[in-house]
Amino acid sequence: MPVSPQQFDIAIDEARAAVEATLDALLPRPDGPEARVAEAMRYAIMAGGKRFRPFLVCESAGLFGVHKGAALRAAAAIECVHTYSLVHDDLPCMDDDDLRRGLPTVHRKFDEATAVLAGDALLTFAFEILADRDTHELAEVRVDLVRRLALASGAHGMVGGQMIDLASEGKAVDIGAITRLQQLKTGALIAFSCEAGAVLGRAPRERRHALRAYAHDMGLAFQIADDLLDVEGEAAALGKATGKDAEAGKATFVSILGVERARDQARMLSEQAIQHLDLFDEKADLLRQAARFVINRRV
Amino acid sequence: MPVSPQQFDIAIDEARAAVEATLDALLPRPDGPEARVAEAMRYAIMAGGKRFRPFLVCESAGLFGVHKGAALRAAAAIECVHTYSLVHDDLPCMDDDDLRRGLPTVHRKFDEATAVLAGDALLTFAFEILADRDTHELAEVRVDLVRRLALASGAHGMVGGQMIDLASEGKAVDIGAITRLQQLKTGALIAFSCEAGAVLGRAPRERRHALRAYAHDMGLAFQIADDLLDVEGEAAALGKATGKDAEAGKATFVSILGVERARDQARMLSEQAIQHLDLFDEKADLLRQAARFVINRRV
Repeated sequence: MPVSPQQFDIAIDEARAAVEATLDALLPRPDGPEARVAEAMRYAIMAGGKRFRPFLVCESAGLFGVHKGAALRAAAAIECVHTYSLVHDDLPCMDDDDLRRGLPTVHRKFDEATAVLAGDALLTFAFEILADRDTHELAEVRVDLVRRLALASGAHGMVGGQMIDLASEGKAVDIGAITRLQQLKTGALIAFSCEAGAVLGRAPRERRHALRAYAHDMGLAFQIADDLLDVEGEAAALGKATGKDAEAGKATFVSILGVERARDQARMLSEQAIQHLDLFDEKADLLRQAARFVINRRV
Repeated sequence: MPVSPQQFDIAIDEARAAVEATLDALLPRPDGPEARVAEAMRYAIMAGGKRFRPFLVCESAGLFGVHKGAALRAAAAIECVHTYSLVHDDLPCMDDDDLRRGLPTVHRKFDEATAVLAGDALLTFAFEILADRDTHELAEVRVDLVRRLALASGAHGMVGGQMIDLASEGKAVDIGAITRLQQLKTGALIAFSCEAGAVLGRAPRERRHALRAYAHDMGLAFQIADDLLDVEGEAAALGKATGKDAEAGKATFVSILGVERARDQARMLSEQAIQHLDLFDEKADLLRQAARFVINRRV
């Protein structure tokens, strides 16, 4: 029996509350003359968000009986990387955004230099969290998480995706190029979020790969839905400006495929993602529901 | 018999050549539509520099019979972190520098967004290098390096130091504050450079601590000498503008202590650093010479 949308909402709220408590406990306290950078890190993190990646970590970890505290630490690390990428992407020299989640962006609330440094510190902190003994008793597991997070986030991962995104503004881009862009920019970290639970749980390779394949398709569906929201969403509900992509001359799945075909594509990817979970039992139902959620969300 | 300045020069040149070859082999190749970020990473790294931190890693590793390849990988990781910090510090919103090592800074050669991303990718890449199995056969050692590098580089390490540096521009700063600033901004990574060899060599705690203490004093001496060079050095030899600190209204060891007392202080710290190496035999002679070198360098 599939979980209801209500059960899904409860589960995602619980994961959000738990990872926020974990982040609050772990993040550096504003202290000493360098307090401002810790303040900006906390501001960036605590501005909220769906905490969708932490939810994926917790759910994938749950498939393998991973200790909740360990999953939450990995989730916190991934949320630090996600947040740092938003802080840097919002900078005037990048997307130049004033609002994020309905609040002033970090460089607006503090200043540009502090935003650069807070981003740097959040990225660094993610690796500190993963490397700490509290994340897993086995060094082999901790260092595997570090390596995979670095690969997902670096020059041929998330940062590479942002590079492509900036380089393709105003250029004609085909569906292959935009798919690669999004796989790097958002897909790699989403895939790692799902994989992290399998790494923590020392899952067999086959199950780890199934989760990666799930994350791959679900992540693309998520991105297409995001592009649809940029066209159709309401700024108030989203807490950020809409129509920005078109304004910036950015190619998106929607600008290339059109609304209808983009919606079909997202639906198809969502179904495909769910099929990758066939080798899991009902413990994976919330992940299945997540694949449905991403294409139906309104915020 | 202490090593001669010539032998020291040869040793530092050898370490430089070796770490540059390692970096060239390891750094991502410019490939795919995201090539620009890899190009900027290589540009930033290959612009040169003394490679003083890599030298410290190799020498401290040599005390414990660490495999040369392992030491060079750790050295490369640290150089990536050092270089990323320079790329971000040079940004218009930070120190706004046009020249670095006689060449256009990354945001001048490329653009600001690429400089932010290249810095992010270099930092990320440092952790990827350390976490890779090629760095050390024991996961315990690799993850320990990751954790210590993150601590040295983060909000209460190097990034914290840069935050204090920016926050104290134009403010009255005492000698205690400037010492803390420099311990975080440059001292923490120099200390880790010396400690990394001990971690790779699984050295007893006492020897690891001796290296940290050495690095602490030598690092401060290095920074005071840097401040002296900013006042007395020649722009042409340094490949960067001099007198920038005074112009920016930045307090330095020299502005607080005056040239003579600053020079005395550097000399005293250099001698103290050498004393911390008393429990090592002549294998540590190049490190002893390094402590002399830092206060006598002209570039």
